[in-house]
Amino acid sequence: MNITGEMLIGQTAVRGAEGSVRAVNPATNETIAPDFGAGSTAAVEQACKLAQQAFDTYRETTPEQRAQFLEEIATGILNLGPQLIERASQESGLPAARLEGERGRTVGQLRLFAKVIRDGHYLSATLDSALPERTPPRSDLRLRKIAIGPVAVFGASNFPLAFSVAGGDTAAALAAGCPVVVKTHNAHPGTSELVGRVIQQAVAACQLPAGVFSLIIGSGNEVGQALVSHPAIKAVGFTGSRQGGLALMRAAAQRREPIPVYAEMSSINPMFLLPNALAARATQIGSAFADSLTMGVGQFCTNPGLVIGLAGEHLAQFQEAASNALKAKAAGTMLTPGIHSAYLAGVEHMQAVSGVDAVGRGMAASAPCAAQAALFATDAATFLASEQLEDEIFGPSSLIVACKNEDEMRAVAEHLAGQLTATLQLDAADHALAKTLLPTLERKAGRILVNGFPTGVEVSYAMVHGGPFPATSDSRSTSVGASAIDRFVRPVCYQDLPDALLPAALQDGNPLGLTRLVDGALHTA
Amino acid sequence: MNITGEMLIGQTAVRGAEGSVRAVNPATNETIAPDFGAGSTAAVEQACKLAQQAFDTYRETTPEQRAQFLEEIATGILNLGPQLIERASQESGLPAARLEGERGRTVGQLRLFAKVIRDGHYLSATLDSALPERTPPRSDLRLRKIAIGPVAVFGASNFPLAFSVAGGDTAAALAAGCPVVVKTHNAHPGTSELVGRVIQQAVAACQLPAGVFSLIIGSGNEVGQALVSHPAIKAVGFTGSRQGGLALMRAAAQRREPIPVYAEMSSINPMFLLPNALAARATQIGSAFADSLTMGVGQFCTNPGLVIGLAGEHLAQFQEAASNALKAKAAGTMLTPGIHSAYLAGVEHMQAVSGVDAVGRGMAASAPCAAQAALFATDAATFLASEQLEDEIFGPSSLIVACKNEDEMRAVAEHLAGQLTATLQLDAADHALAKTLLPTLERKAGRILVNGFPTGVEVSYAMVHGGPFPATSDSRSTSVGASAIDRFVRPVCYQDLPDALLPAALQDGNPLGLTRLVDGALHTA
Repeated sequence: MNITGEMLIGQTAVRGAEGSVRAVNPATNETIAPDFGAGSTAAVEQACKLAQQAFDTYRETTPEQRAQFLEEIATGILNLGPQLIERASQESGLPAARLEGERGRTVGQLRLFAKVIRDGHYLSATLDSALPERTPPRSDLRLRKIAIGPVAVFGASNFPLAFSVAGGDTAAALAAGCPVVVKTHNAHPGTSELVGRVIQQAVAACQLPAGVFSLIIGSGNEVGQALVSHPAIKAVGFTGSRQGGLALMRAAAQRREPIPVYAEMSSINPMFLLPNALAARATQIGSAFADSLTMGVGQFCTNPGLVIGLAGEHLAQFQEAASNALKAKAAGTMLTPGIHSAYLAGVEHMQAVSGVDAVGRGMAASAPCAAQAALFATDAATFLASEQLEDEIFGPSSLIVACKNEDEMRAVAEHLAGQLTATLQLDAADHALAKTLLPTLERKAGRILVNGFPTGVEVSYAMVHGGPFPATSDSRSTSVGASAIDRFVRPVCYQDLPDALLPAALQDGNPLGLTRLVDGALHTA
Repeated sequence: MNITGEMLIGQTAVRGAEGSVRAVNPATNETIAPDFGAGSTAAVEQACKLAQQAFDTYRETTPEQRAQFLEEIATGILNLGPQLIERASQESGLPAARLEGERGRTVGQLRLFAKVIRDGHYLSATLDSALPERTPPRSDLRLRKIAIGPVAVFGASNFPLAFSVAGGDTAAALAAGCPVVVKTHNAHPGTSELVGRVIQQAVAACQLPAGVFSLIIGSGNEVGQALVSHPAIKAVGFTGSRQGGLALMRAAAQRREPIPVYAEMSSINPMFLLPNALAARATQIGSAFADSLTMGVGQFCTNPGLVIGLAGEHLAQFQEAASNALKAKAAGTMLTPGIHSAYLAGVEHMQAVSGVDAVGRGMAASAPCAAQAALFATDAATFLASEQLEDEIFGPSSLIVACKNEDEMRAVAEHLAGQLTATLQLDAADHALAKTLLPTLERKAGRILVNGFPTGVEVSYAMVHGGPFPATSDSRSTSVGASAIDRFVRPVCYQDLPDALLPAALQDGNPLGLTRLVDGALHTA
């Protein structure tokens, strides 16, 4: 497929004339052809208007139609073959094998949402029978969820496939029945165009309205701000920095009609080493931790950036094992020059904090955007006193916090801001201590793990990739897994509508074969 | 029960020293004893701290414990007997019969939530089995929803029982496992204290932590702002004016950790008269409409403030029937002097709009806060050109909009802001036109009614009392009905937790007997 550098507005390809954007290969710091034409707010206007026009038709397509559309996109992505992997690798510095895995996940999540809409549980179909004899009489009441409206999606740099143009936000929104306008991430515009063209073709193949999908390019923040501010847009999906997420939250709150923003932002993913597990397996955990920390050059939202344990010989063993393992970790290429310099600044900052010691480094960096892993250590008193030690350093850096006793461990847990994940390394003899930590961790995190590592986010029914602020802007939601669709729907109640006017989900004959809550009891079709 | 004028902070009663508040009887404009001592931000701090301390214990009480607690509150409210009705009637001007009905509804919704938590569907218990043989292996993943945290509740003046201290927001939050801090509505402080003391006693009787409930009094906005800004508070429930709701939304967005605000604000509840229904029953609909408009002196969020029909003899018949019926409607006492003067100002404003005619009035007012019903008429061109005609006039005032044709009717529908309800009066021959209006109305409203009137909101499983902004601050939710509990929970995923550390909702043996989604399929216990 030819990469032209154009925006995709509905079924058209339009060259933006507001300057141009080029991808940079972070492994060489060289730019990659072609030039991408950046659009103006007029392009935003056009895409949003088309999305608005498409909305009523698209949201009332049958679940089967939308499921097939998602499957068509999945097939189209696979059909791009090696071109997609090569371009994404050039633009992101990520190795081909990793991107092949990510492609599988992207395709898998499109297919999961196809199943989710065929099952239809997300519709929350609910029926209350009329009670004409009651005083006062009760009307016939039926509830279903409908698509919230056109959705703006801002992809992430660290998952150019799974959290970008056809990533989780787009898949969930399209599944719910929401047209999507994507703002291309300028770190991977070519990858974005390839995937965007696949969606554009799937829209045509499935005979859907043109405005179901558009892809906009912008060189600065103006285009993104205009997109979030457009009256046709009814929700926003974003994965990226806290600064970026906060800017979108502000823009959304300042609209005449405020809209929900689902921003997945920053998390340091604390890992608690409980004493018995540490006594039994300090070296093993330390070495596995180094693997998790450096996987993907530490560029995961769920990277373990904080380790909490009781001071003593076992924590020292853990630290030594982690440091030793790090020494053998090559400095990997980061996603962008910007991310690389932010990483260097973050590590430097950490090093400068009084009371923090540098206790481990990876192999030295030689290539342009390569990042040397870094491990630091401090004590709980220092950690509790310095707010900046909780700031996320995006990349392979982590901080070990040594606690004097279990109370201090609990104090560190209670001190933490919102997180995507919290991990416990524990043995059976640690259960009592774990039980005192769990209530705090539940309040702080969207996912709690035992004896694993937080990197690697399964796309399944029970996954939660979310958590309290600042991990996300909205702890009531997840951006990964089946229930991500819940972000893009809202309930509508129908009172005394004749069957002919009711949506299929709520008709007497249950033509969609849904499981429905009827007078308070679940009825399967 | 003695009304003391104290705040209820956990299990204590505390007299506020920041000035005092007295209720006013709107029927006489006289104040009612006793004085209520207004609290300071120190009282807010104390209540929030207690709520925070109570949270982990309270949220992990069993569903049965919380259900019994809600039932204990319901019984306590009934046991207040005539004292509650008398005091509420004095403070609100609402007649005893109406308040008895409202008490039934309040008790009913507490009992509904008891059933909702015993059923446990709101927990969304979801289990994905481990797949150790897969490459990469899949962990055991389990999801449940947990309470979001302490909730601040601001009651409404127009439902001193059902939308106040033990109203829908409080019932839903307590059901979810959230401690509640209520800011007393100064229009009914005595009613608030009586109900607050019932909850306080129920907390003690059920041996729950003291901080599960507090009731704060404030003379101005400062106490409310402090409450919404307190770090322990994790969500806000509010029913009232758009101005009040927007102030709370701003305060919540400006927090270091932004939190959800569920504000139910303003709605004019359009009613569309479709041509065949109008030809068949113009007089009957007109007269029934006048009943709905003046019920409760028009002081319902769902009051029908806008009527849209095709210009012509049948619309004239409707208008005449409504006007005639209004002539016989007595001017009822409004809830507060402030609401009464706002109503007078709104009616005056409407009268002054060029192109709007006054076409009907109720009986003249003589008592202090009595409101004379008002009916206005205009054409669609005038309505579409003047934004202020969409402003809610809280009270028995409505505007008829005459459209030249069906296209203009659809244009009016498309022009509307978000609404709690939209109503269609229709016959079978109107279905084709209704089908062209319904997609727009679904985008605009939380509830769509056919051949009824929007006043009267059933508390049931399928009810939605919500809708797009400005009807509410969050269209994804309802403040009435079983799914109101969804506002106060958030999902947490548990990865590879041993059964001993899992919450009961997710344990292998399913001790709560929940319906759970297991590997994508619903399993009933």
